[in-house]
Amino acid sequence: MQLTDLTQLDKNDPLADKRSQFQLPKGTIYLDGNSLGALPAASAKRVTEVVNQQWGNDLISSWNKHKWIELPIQTGDKIAPLIGAAKGQVIVCDSISVNLFKLLTAALNMQNNRSVVVSEQGNFPTDLYMVQGLESLLGAQRCTLNSVPTADIEGALTTDVAVLMLTHVNFKTGRIHDMQRLTKLAQDKGIMVVWDLAHSAGALPVELDKCNADFAVGCGYKYLNGGPGSPAFLYAASRHHDDISQPLSGWMGHANPFEFDDTYRAATGIRQFLTGTPSVIAMAVLDAALDVFGDVDMQAVRHKSIALTEAFLTLKAQHPELNDLLMLSPENPQARGSQLSFTHKDAYGICQALIDHGVVPDFRAPNVIRFGFTPMYLRYEDMRLAIEVLTKVMSEKLYLQQKYQVKGAVT
Amino acid sequence: MQLTDLTQLDKNDPLADKRSQFQLPKGTIYLDGNSLGALPAASAKRVTEVVNQQWGNDLISSWNKHKWIELPIQTGDKIAPLIGAAKGQVIVCDSISVNLFKLLTAALNMQNNRSVVVSEQGNFPTDLYMVQGLESLLGAQRCTLNSVPTADIEGALTTDVAVLMLTHVNFKTGRIHDMQRLTKLAQDKGIMVVWDLAHSAGALPVELDKCNADFAVGCGYKYLNGGPGSPAFLYAASRHHDDISQPLSGWMGHANPFEFDDTYRAATGIRQFLTGTPSVIAMAVLDAALDVFGDVDMQAVRHKSIALTEAFLTLKAQHPELNDLLMLSPENPQARGSQLSFTHKDAYGICQALIDHGVVPDFRAPNVIRFGFTPMYLRYEDMRLAIEVLTKVMSEKLYLQQKYQVKGAVT
Repeated sequence: MQLTDLTQLDKNDPLADKRSQFQLPKGTIYLDGNSLGALPAASAKRVTEVVNQQWGNDLISSWNKHKWIELPIQTGDKIAPLIGAAKGQVIVCDSISVNLFKLLTAALNMQNNRSVVVSEQGNFPTDLYMVQGLESLLGAQRCTLNSVPTADIEGALTTDVAVLMLTHVNFKTGRIHDMQRLTKLAQDKGIMVVWDLAHSAGALPVELDKCNADFAVGCGYKYLNGGPGSPAFLYAASRHHDDISQPLSGWMGHANPFEFDDTYRAATGIRQFLTGTPSVIAMAVLDAALDVFGDVDMQAVRHKSIALTEAFLTLKAQHPELNDLLMLSPENPQARGSQLSFTHKDAYGICQALIDHGVVPDFRAPNVIRFGFTPMYLRYEDMRLAIEVLTKVMSEKLYLQQKYQVKGAVT
Repeated sequence: MQLTDLTQLDKNDPLADKRSQFQLPKGTIYLDGNSLGALPAASAKRVTEVVNQQWGNDLISSWNKHKWIELPIQTGDKIAPLIGAAKGQVIVCDSISVNLFKLLTAALNMQNNRSVVVSEQGNFPTDLYMVQGLESLLGAQRCTLNSVPTADIEGALTTDVAVLMLTHVNFKTGRIHDMQRLTKLAQDKGIMVVWDLAHSAGALPVELDKCNADFAVGCGYKYLNGGPGSPAFLYAASRHHDDISQPLSGWMGHANPFEFDDTYRAATGIRQFLTGTPSVIAMAVLDAALDVFGDVDMQAVRHKSIALTEAFLTLKAQHPELNDLLMLSPENPQARGSQLSFTHKDAYGICQALIDHGVVPDFRAPNVIRFGFTPMYLRYEDMRLAIEVLTKVMSEKLYLQQKYQVKGAVT
């Protein structure tokens, strides 16, 4: 692969103009949008408006005047088309962890005499932790986590299982699960399915409705670029809305919060999943960020994502100095999300050296370097620059320098 | 009370210069800081910095570089002195509703063979709803809400009760509970006590440690001015930290989140109450807002709060046209928080007419007008202006006009 090939790819890229909608730091190749997406200019603009005009000037009247009260639904409906969901099934609120708790209890409450939640070893930890929390609260008779190796998932789907909870794209390896196949396999055994879309939403097409998914959660601050700690989203298929019972029954999920009734009565539809007062500022930032996707075809995003990772791998193969970086992600681009992970015993130092030289991946313990490829703001040309820096770091063994061994609180 | 008296009070007000630290709309007397506090200039400045510099420029490195990872603890430690808590016992996260769920389960898990949660009828609904949610999840044998009339609270504190959960200052009436007395009464019967400080924190001195409180929650967006939907706070007395078991065991509450271990192991101390990734932008806004309190004596805040409400009532009494507004709040200023509530059959229209004429209270169904008095940015002179407008609205019966009858989603 030649420089001219990359230039040509950039020239023909239908998403090329999206880059200008982000405020990217100069001189940095940012390959960590799968951890924290970059700042959309629209979000920077909106936060100023929400803070200074809406909060500062219009104060409490903004709940009506600027429709703050509608934000969780409005923002959810902007996410819906990105994940193949019809309107009214997605709401933005709380964190993935809290939303999983709502959905897990709702699913368990719908399953008579079944208590097992099947998940995967090496799933993102918070997903497993939330089941463990529920198990310790309810006891094993009502909730038991069975986390199995990837290869054993299908075999674990027996008729005593209540819920299958999986992350669509694995955070460490990037491996994609076949949503359609696994959902059907599970549902044929009477199992309800909860998908975690943290590394899928905004990165590749997801077809929740088409796959007949029951429930899903996802992250606002990765490929959706909603800002650090952005509220998460929650999907519940509309066929379940009348049968939901979940214990985080806060006032915002009440049928009429401003009645101030002493007795909880759930709102109808997706709104019943709201708990406390939503974080208006944080949600408005995400809402603005989603407008970047307004005219985007997720197939085009997927196409570019694969082309970026393939360019990266082709260039990597041209440098024998990089052979020590062993690919952890699937070789088949259709089998992985928008990331490439490599193992190396000095992964931590390599990450730090790369960052110091303007290329930002991240480290995942104990020995993984993760490169995220966000099609919305990366150029093909960036692949060449990244490989150039990576080659320097590896060939000169820069990662062995003492300064790259110091660990921060977040690694 | 004469105009000159008010001018003098403003002149001698030790908190007078605090007003300049807020961005208040011109021509508005804002008496709704108990619903949504006004915008501190420091928060407006900080949000720009966090969004543009930290997120936009430093991206993922900000978790270490700008100590995002420490924000929940750092911000909690800024709230601690305002509520009489030693450091390390307060953390900022999630909403009041979600935090109550954590504390209620933690308290119930510490109480063998007790299941009753005593609370008060007319408590803020979300508090009651969270107990109801837990009751429906765990069954009545493990959790039963007993919400009683105010007068019956003490009588309900029997040795089969697990938890007493009360809001310190009632949202509708402003009535204060005697925290010290009720905490002791309950604990003498082996009952654990959870206080909701939504209408206390930042409005009056609270002495959690001195009262030997077990747990508490509170709101970031009322008297603490943390912005719409600001994260809430949670207090847990350090003597309980080693005995906590709560089910919202997300990755941020893990002893080492970046180990990515499949098994949950709670962090020590107050950090174990974290669940998902915290909303950095929203929390930074609250963190900056708290600096307004950095040099403030809460006794001085309380002194001014009482003086403002007493001035308001004195001026009101000078206008017989206002006699139809019946005081719902306690007459004794020591027995109420920083608000005055009045009932009137046309309360909704009166509120709307007042807002239209530049005085902002709020309406609480079915017939309550609530005036909040935030000592940090209100002037004594504002009391005169507010009463002037109120007198016009009442004497001219402006509230009967059709345009003031239209209800928004939020009333």
